[in-house]
Amino acid sequence: MPLVNISLRKGTSADYRRAIADAIHQAMMDAFRIPADDRFILISEHSPENMIQDRTFFGIERIDKSVFLQIVVNHRPVAQKASFYEFVVKNLGHTPGLRPEDIFIGIVEVAPENWWAFARNVNASGSDAVLGTALPRP
Amino acid sequence: MPLVNISLRKGTSADYRRAIADAIHQAMMDAFRIPADDRFILISEHSPENMIQDRTFFGIERIDKSVFLQIVVNHRPVAQKASFYEFVVKNLGHTPGLRPEDIFIGIVEVAPENWWAFARNVNASGSDAVLGTALPRP
Amino acid sequence: MPLVNISLRKGTSADYRRAIADAIHQAMMDAFRIPADDRFILISEHSPENMIQDRTFFGIERIDKSVFLQIVVNHRPVAQKASFYEFVVKNLGHTPGLRPEDIFIGIVEVAPENWWAFARNVNASGSDAVLGTALPRP
Repeated sequence: MPLVNISLRKGTSADYRRAIADAIHQAMMDAFRIPADDRFILISEHSPENMIQDRTFFGIERIDKSVFLQIVVNHRPVAQKASFYEFVVKNLGHTPGLRPEDIFIGIVEVAPENWWAFARNVNASGSDAVLGTALPRP
Repeated sequence: MPLVNISLRKGTSADYRRAIADAIHQAMMDAFRIPADDRFILISEHSPENMIQDRTFFGIERIDKSVFLQIVVNHRPVAQKASFYEFVVKNLGHTPGLRPEDIFIGIVEVAPENWWAFARNVNASGSDAVLGTALPRP
Repeated sequence: MPLVNISLRKGTSADYRRAIADAIHQAMMDAFRIPADDRFILISEHSPENMIQDRTFFGIERIDKSVFLQIVVNHRPVAQKASFYEFVVKNLGHTPGLRPEDIFIGIVEVAPENWWAFARNVNASGSDAVLGTALPRP
């Protein structure tokens, strides 16, 4: 149950933002093998002065179409994370057409039991458990 | 010193949002034994297209009243986290009256020394220390 | 490649917010030795009711000028984090002139390979690698 935060500047269409969300979700399905409906994505639109980056970082020029992505996900092997980056860059390059230079990704890893969603929980050993339904209805 | 992020869709009252914040804070007091005044909560209101989830996840129908909660907190035993989820679901079910299906929780755990608040700091061994007051006033 | 989230209340000038961002960035350069152009900062402006803290926490009165800072960064020694806090408090006290009482900092630590930025990546051993340019252009 990853939680995705997409940050970008104001002035894009809802379709454009949805394309970014879909590209990332597909990358998580391919690299992390998450289920198709395991989709929890937040998009934050910032004014230019509230989304700060240097024009040039590590010798590469970056532009205002850049997106910052934060993915909170269960611990993953290094190779899976590298694969995820490749899928994200490939997918976003295709639709909506972002340059790799304008993609910034940070992953935050957590323990499997750090998630709760009704009817689906993952226990400390990594197994799914239907804890939710065991709770008394309020 | 947990940091709480509450994400929900636009169109709710300040009272409604405060009730959500209070329900989570009470759950942290009960499950994590945090002090009553250890309250640092951010609420983000999203347009519908900027808060994406599948209508159905793991066979459960979810609606637009859903909330995504992110709790950053010191490392906790698995049982405490499970207890926290139960309190959150129970409290939010009571006030403002959210269904369990519409609650999504993610916890991010950090080391005790990863917090700084003036006059209260927790060192690497987990003890409180009054580091803040030892700093030279700027 | 730290990712910084600055949360504060609405009603400040862009210059004021930039001064906060710069103060934090300088503190990361001094304490964490990050490069000058490794700058990825998001600022979120909240209405008063969407940024909740107690007036008094640990016996200290806090005011509405408070800022909540979240820094996602590679794992750091305890002493470096303590040094970072000191720099942040000193810098923000100088410009734009925040009281230590009104600064709240939380650090989230991640593995070096959890970042991706075109042309700069850090592998699991902590070394820089130019993975980005090795990717096929989409």
